[in-house]
Amino acid sequence: MSSLQTITLHSHPGPNPWKIALLFEELNVPYVSKVYTTPELKQPAFLALNRNGMAPVIEDPNKGLLLAESGAIMDYILDQYDTEKSITFTTLPEQYLMKQWLQFQTTTQGPVLQGVFHWANVEPNPEARASCVKNFRRVLQVLNGELADKDWLVGGKCSAADLSYVSFHAKLDFIMKEAAPDVAKDFPNVDAWFRRMLEREPVRKMLNDSDEARSKLNIPGGNK
Amino acid sequence: MSSLQTITLHSHPGPNPWKIALLFEELNVPYVSKVYTTPELKQPAFLALNRNGMAPVIEDPNKGLLLAESGAIMDYILDQYDTEKSITFTTLPEQYLMKQWLQFQTTTQGPVLQGVFHWANVEPNPEARASCVKNFRRVLQVLNGELADKDWLVGGKCSAADLSYVSFHAKLDFIMKEAAPDVAKDFPNVDAWFRRMLEREPVRKMLNDSDEARSKLNIPGGNK
Repeated sequence: MSSLQTITLHSHPGPNPWKIALLFEELNVPYVSKVYTTPELKQPAFLALNRNGMAPVIEDPNKGLLLAESGAIMDYILDQYDTEKSITFTTLPEQYLMKQWLQFQTTTQGPVLQGVFHWANVEPNPEARASCVKNFRRVLQVLNGELADKDWLVGGKCSAADLSYVSFHAKLDFIMKEAAPDVAKDFPNVDAWFRRMLEREPVRKMLNDSDEARSKLNIPGGNK
Repeated sequence: MSSLQTITLHSHPGPNPWKIALLFEELNVPYVSKVYTTPELKQPAFLALNRNGMAPVIEDPNKGLLLAESGAIMDYILDQYDTEKSITFTTLPEQYLMKQWLQFQTTTQGPVLQGVFHWANVEPNPEARASCVKNFRRVLQVLNGELADKDWLVGGKCSAADLSYVSFHAKLDFIMKEAAPDVAKDFPNVDAWFRRMLEREPVRKMLNDSDEARSKLNIPGGNK
């Protein structure tokens, strides 16, 4: 899509904005990541982009759009730029089952893992952390059950629904530390699914870029 | 929409499924709520509908669709049944700004308030509860700032974005108890916005129905 102007992805070293970077990679949309530290997200320059002080935010000069919330950004990018429907669907029920699994990512897989991180590092609280760890095993169980008899969450192909889980799943050992489950042993369908996604060039590119962003800011927890 | 077959809303006394009931009321779509208790959501009959064990789930016989996750259900209902675009938009940027605020509800307003409830009642943890209380004041501040110079979140009319906040906001005093903020004093734009929504007949109907469901199950915390 070389006729497009470059989209700015206001990003952060945490997993969430990299879901968006992955979509741009998959769809070959020109973009540039501007990576903010956590304190920078609470400064006036960033709050002018999103008063909620959270990344990702995108600025798309092609449509003059400033948009926050990863779930809304994904909807926008997929609607506008997946013109060949390579990672989306036009049929019922696939179209909405994809949204169901996208929502399970944004409301459950992501936040529960962020909870594990938060109660370990931001406001240490061992009981709250243990509760999130337990809840995250349940998240993996839900995914493992869903993937029992299929390779992909929806419609027999790798879609945005699957891809939205990668950037968080790649951080599982780093975030959960000693409490990280043995995914290959306990949730083998999830493990095989993740490995299938790692075979995709855009996935590897995104994980590498995320590593580089962390190492530039001297933040531990690369994906390799 | 009398030619439609009745949609089943698999529901729960908590605030989340009532967002969906409100859309059906607003759009005059025939539906019936089947209200499950929390323990029932973890039983095989319900897990067969949603292996994640959470309400809402809808079954729409008009399209043969079984769908979970409130955000995905809202997208589906609005796409299929808001044919006159009475509470949605077809223009950019309104279409995606609506999704942005819908996502802020599903990923932030709802879960933070559920966090306050959880750490008070399910796994009592005063520090974790206090953190969620503080975070919820920030949620109200974000909304109050956004509503500083307008009546509605997006596009100058009451849309699904605004309406998605009602069922949780109505439970604020019940959930937060002594920590509930004085919304009229501290977040006056939010208070005025909520009162504007209370003037709508579908909003009052939904809150009444939610009260009745709670009282049938002997659960405290009605909206009146």
